[in-house]
Amino acid sequence: MAEYVPLPLILAAEQFAKLPGIGMKTAQRLAYHILTMPAAEVNGFADTLVTARSSVRCCSVCRNFTEKELCTLCSDSRRDSTIICVVEAPRDVSAIERAGGFDGTYHVLHGLLSPMDGTGPEDIHMKELMERLSGNVTEVIMATNPTVEGEATASYISRLIKPMNIKVSRLAYGLPAGASLEFADDVTLARAMENRNLI
Amino acid sequence: MAEYVPLPLILAAEQFAKLPGIGMKTAQRLAYHILTMPAAEVNGFADTLVTARSSVRCCSVCRNFTEKELCTLCSDSRRDSTIICVVEAPRDVSAIERAGGFDGTYHVLHGLLSPMDGTGPEDIHMKELMERLSGNVTEVIMATNPTVEGEATASYISRLIKPMNIKVSRLAYGLPAGASLEFADDVTLARAMENRNLI
Repeated sequence: MAEYVPLPLILAAEQFAKLPGIGMKTAQRLAYHILTMPAAEVNGFADTLVTARSSVRCCSVCRNFTEKELCTLCSDSRRDSTIICVVEAPRDVSAIERAGGFDGTYHVLHGLLSPMDGTGPEDIHMKELMERLSGNVTEVIMATNPTVEGEATASYISRLIKPMNIKVSRLAYGLPAGASLEFADDVTLARAMENRNLI
Repeated sequence: MAEYVPLPLILAAEQFAKLPGIGMKTAQRLAYHILTMPAAEVNGFADTLVTARSSVRCCSVCRNFTEKELCTLCSDSRRDSTIICVVEAPRDVSAIERAGGFDGTYHVLHGLLSPMDGTGPEDIHMKELMERLSGNVTEVIMATNPTVEGEATASYISRLIKPMNIKVSRLAYGLPAGASLEFADDVTLARAMENRNLI
């Protein structure tokens, strides 16, 4: 933006542009919008963000976001703590809970192994996961994304766990619900064929 | 989001969802991102928004956003103050300045007439525009968007100005640069035909 745009407006746009998925054009639109909001609403918005960052921390067991020492899922006695579902990020916990059908507990890695980005086993919450396995855990479900990093992380961790005589499973591959064969990519289709089930 | 998601995270997502063009899904992604940012960065982000809202105000002449009493465009003696380009919002000033070729001044309405939404002439900066016309203004360019409200506002204002013996013009209608006739909508194509120029 040029010299006829007030500096605070440019700075606000630059801050928005740092957020994931927000391009410079959208960031500018949001910054202009902030100036048209009542000052009290802008203050409220700012306070909410600061409060969220300062009051939310990681559960001491599963590393999911929580306000307490122990998250609601870990402190829920109805959940089956012998099954641990390993995910990359807290948003994945929400996704699986929303889908329903899983009543075990979680472990949030807060990242994936990525040699390209220099992310090694010590940079994600892997040590905490291994420590939990000394208990009465019977199955670990690797629910990382089906990407290169997600696959690599799942296979790295499963290699460490298998010798401990704990069952390790991976989310099923196949066609997404409502998909059309015509538009499915080759890898997905090949895997759906490979993992076909008798009906 | 459900009870296993910390409340401050839900509140942050709701705040993001209030911004224009940000749906609930994107808002949740942004809220999760805020929690992964260093606390100092979140504070900086919040401060920048509050500062932008509190330090930026409207230019006393053209109502464009500025930090001073008079915006840089109005205080620039090289700009032709006898020509006023009327726009809906400050972002439109940026768009026209970016395109280049205009060296007059602006007037920002901060809205458009919209009987459906109850926005009348007194709700937009029209009175301030009329007051500026008592000077040595020779032309007013109506540069509101080519939408129903934009057209209505342009024609309403031009009807008020014409009796004052000031030239009133409207941005040209036609095909956008790089457009394809095949995909142009009927109204645009009809107007492009109507306003055709000799070459």
